Amino acid sequence: MSTFVVVGGDAAGMSAASKAKRDNPDLEVVVFERGQWVSYGACGLPYYIKGEIQSLEDLVSITPEQFREEREIDLRIGHNVIDIDPDSRTVTAQSGHEALTQTYDYLLIATGAAAVTPSIDGLDLTGVYTLGSMSDGKELREYVSRARSDRNLQQPDRGPACQFLETCNGPVGIVGGGYIGVEMAEALAANGFEVHLFQRGDRILKQFSEATSEVVLEHLVDQNVAVYLGSEVEELTGTEAVEAVVTTDEHVPVEMVLVGTGVRPRTTLAEDAGIKLGDTGAIATDTYRETNVSDVYAAGDCAEARHVVTGEPVYVPLALTANRHGRAIGQTVAGTPTEGGGVAGTAAVKAFDVEAARTGLSDPEAREAGFEPLTQTIDAKSRAGYYPEGGTVRVTLTVDGPSGRVLGGSLVSEYGEGAVHRSHALVGAVTEGISVDELSKYDLAYAPPFNTTWDPVLTAAKVLSGER
Amino acid sequence: MSTFVVVGGDAAGMSAASKAKRDNPDLEVVVFERGQWVSYGACGLPYYIKGEIQSLEDLVSITPEQFREEREIDLRIGHNVIDIDPDSRTVTAQSGHEALTQTYDYLLIATGAAAVTPSIDGLDLTGVYTLGSMSDGKELREYVSRARSDRNLQQPDRGPACQFLETCNGPVGIVGGGYIGVEMAEALAANGFEVHLFQRGDRILKQFSEATSEVVLEHLVDQNVAVYLGSEVEELTGTEAVEAVVTTDEHVPVEMVLVGTGVRPRTTLAEDAGIKLGDTGAIATDTYRETNVSDVYAAGDCAEARHVVTGEPVYVPLALTANRHGRAIGQTVAGTPTEGGGVAGTAAVKAFDVEAARTGLSDPEAREAGFEPLTQTIDAKSRAGYYPEGGTVRVTLTVDGPSGRVLGGSLVSEYGEGAVHRSHALVGAVTEGISVDELSKYDLAYAPPFNTTWDPVLTAAKVLSGER
Repeated sequence: MSTFVVVGGDAAGMSAASKAKRDNPDLEVVVFERGQWVSYGACGLPYYIKGEIQSLEDLVSITPEQFREEREIDLRIGHNVIDIDPDSRTVTAQSGHEALTQTYDYLLIATGAAAVTPSIDGLDLTGVYTLGSMSDGKELREYVSRARSDRNLQQPDRGPACQFLETCNGPVGIVGGGYIGVEMAEALAANGFEVHLFQRGDRILKQFSEATSEVVLEHLVDQNVAVYLGSEVEELTGTEAVEAVVTTDEHVPVEMVLVGTGVRPRTTLAEDAGIKLGDTGAIATDTYRETNVSDVYAAGDCAEARHVVTGEPVYVPLALTANRHGRAIGQTVAGTPTEGGGVAGTAAVKAFDVEAARTGLSDPEAREAGFEPLTQTIDAKSRAGYYPEGGTVRVTLTVDGPSGRVLGGSLVSEYGEGAVHRSHALVGAVTEGISVDELSKYDLAYAPPFNTTWDPVLTAAKVLSGER
Repeated sequence: MSTFVVVGGDAAGMSAASKAKRDNPDLEVVVFERGQWVSYGACGLPYYIKGEIQSLEDLVSITPEQFREEREIDLRIGHNVIDIDPDSRTVTAQSGHEALTQTYDYLLIATGAAAVTPSIDGLDLTGVYTLGSMSDGKELREYVSRARSDRNLQQPDRGPACQFLETCNGPVGIVGGGYIGVEMAEALAANGFEVHLFQRGDRILKQFSEATSEVVLEHLVDQNVAVYLGSEVEELTGTEAVEAVVTTDEHVPVEMVLVGTGVRPRTTLAEDAGIKLGDTGAIATDTYRETNVSDVYAAGDCAEARHVVTGEPVYVPLALTANRHGRAIGQTVAGTPTEGGGVAGTAAVKAFDVEAARTGLSDPEAREAGFEPLTQTIDAKSRAGYYPEGGTVRVTLTVDGPSGRVLGGSLVSEYGEGAVHRSHALVGAVTEGISVDELSKYDLAYAPPFNTTWDPVLTAAKVLSGER
């Protein structure tokens, strides 16, 4: 009987464990998770902190008991793997003061990512948070709940943030204008906080097109979020608790700070075992997600993936890739070698009442990859002009000038007007490498409550197709 | 100077005229339209009749004056073309008692479609309507308005249809359970009518999957629409005005009947000129939409198109194809030969509070085309399970068993839960002929407010991929 050992019990790890055991019930499957939570939806944490989800348990799709009893997976929570020895094919895990050694035939490293913290003073002050784990989420919710009860808020607001009022909670600071930053701006605003968002670069959501960032920025400002662009945070000050965010130009009093400046792969364990990292700093794998060490796989937020446009390894730590690659590894170790597929760098975000998605290469990414990008942005109605509801979908499309190949896109609309789901049309185009002329001739669904006769995606393709 | 003559001033005709003139301003462009309306959104008529759109003019995207003055198109409304002579390259148009002859270098036949009426007695009774033209829409709105004012309704309702109450408007009958039938059920229900819908086959929306039809049917029934399946209408009875719909089994008293049993291409003019029809009964063309007669093109609801899966000519009269093919013909006659692209048979419909889309080949269509279809239907959450909003997306996916090629799909969800926009993911898959394994690895956008980690489309692909 073979043994499949998984290090890390979130998306990639539990997907792999479940699929391997389902496809090959004879396999012994052991999962070590150093924390108490497995298979949790970390993407839901902002909505838990906002107050729209009542219990942290709601974010867990399958409980440890279900994994153990229904799926027959030997899941050991509170077990921290401290060593991998590929020569003897063993891992050593520590639980409390005890260490145990487990042999493996196949190993998956799914150790995830850790929040990046900038190198500034004051990060150790009380009231400074990151949002990388369930326990981070728990602490933040507790902070928010205390403030909510002070203000006697029963339900999260859906309106704009509180601003310059005696009755505001906060003020609070968010360092970083990425996904976490804008989602947490919404979550904190809904709880009566005065919200200040600090972004080092000259725009928020820098993975999206400039035109998309602009719409989201304007919306955040409309929602009374104080956004500081080109703002380098120099330190957080305070005696015991944080009292101010100090930037090159500003000194902003705050009662709490969330640091959301990205994540980096957790690779120490792998590196110590002689497993190679790629240029991105994440674990390098082949298309089966196998590392340079035979029968040792890596997936999820600790590993690289191959970009569908460039074919190059990239580090894009997102939930679907972790699930998909985990599942493919499960199939492989169960006996059916399965490639996990590439990534298109697709991502989606909601911020208050706008939604945005991006996929493929942005204009600067395309240039860096050696293409000659041609980029256009169009604003189009989200529904037939005469239809009584609707808004605007802004589409930025990037193609390779000489070949016309669709390289990437970025969409933004009012929440509910379909920017995110419409991006589905571009993922296929980017993945299959079709030309913008072909895309402009796609027979996309049309009816007045859903789009104009030419969906905004087609309008963008038509415009770019005409310019080449 | 060359002359481009267009017969028919709706989607295909005006798209071609506009594009040709824009790309080659030296071209003389003459459009003959026998009615008074050009470039109108007939797809919006149900919403006009419902009362959500106030004026018929709102459905017109570009007015005749704009075509004449801004686009410099010689647009002649009220001109009925009665003859085409390819030998002398002339058309003869009648306006009132006068006839005029116009020469052409290029000709586009865009004569559209006419409502099919079943061969039953009683169609000439007062109160029997079809919905093929703007004037049909006008008459129906007038009928509805009279009933509304009788009932003192200020706004269209958004709730279910009135049923078996003294205060109901109607009852009214709808013959046909296709797009027009379900859209008009919503429109009439919103105006206080008791609505009876008669469908000859054993399900409504027969172009969609059975699983989709089932959801829409249940919803119509929930909305108090009386739906009669497998119901052959034998006659409409009444003395002057219609009084009852008589089927094999039923005698249902009604005050109005809408016949929505599909459309057929208007081809008489073309046939008389020696232009060939295809097996579908619509005008046959090549990939440039040119007919068997040199320099004579056909597009829109009178013409065939090539199916992207089978490569065979089909008759799928829908708005986007008309626009796209018209535009391509405009480019071609302006000097840049341009193919209009195929059709995937994609369509979308809203019925009360559900939305549905379909694309590609259904299971029976695939079988008929020589594939060995494998079809599965899944129900999936439309958003993360813990997210406070959301519903269910039902996806039916059809693939070719031996090759795994994605052939088609059908989706349905609550209105706003994205069945229609999510279908964008399938259009590319169907058009590019990719396998369901590939589709299951697409990096589609994910965030909790928009889907589960695996979008419902991916879940369906994953299930079918596992079954092959």
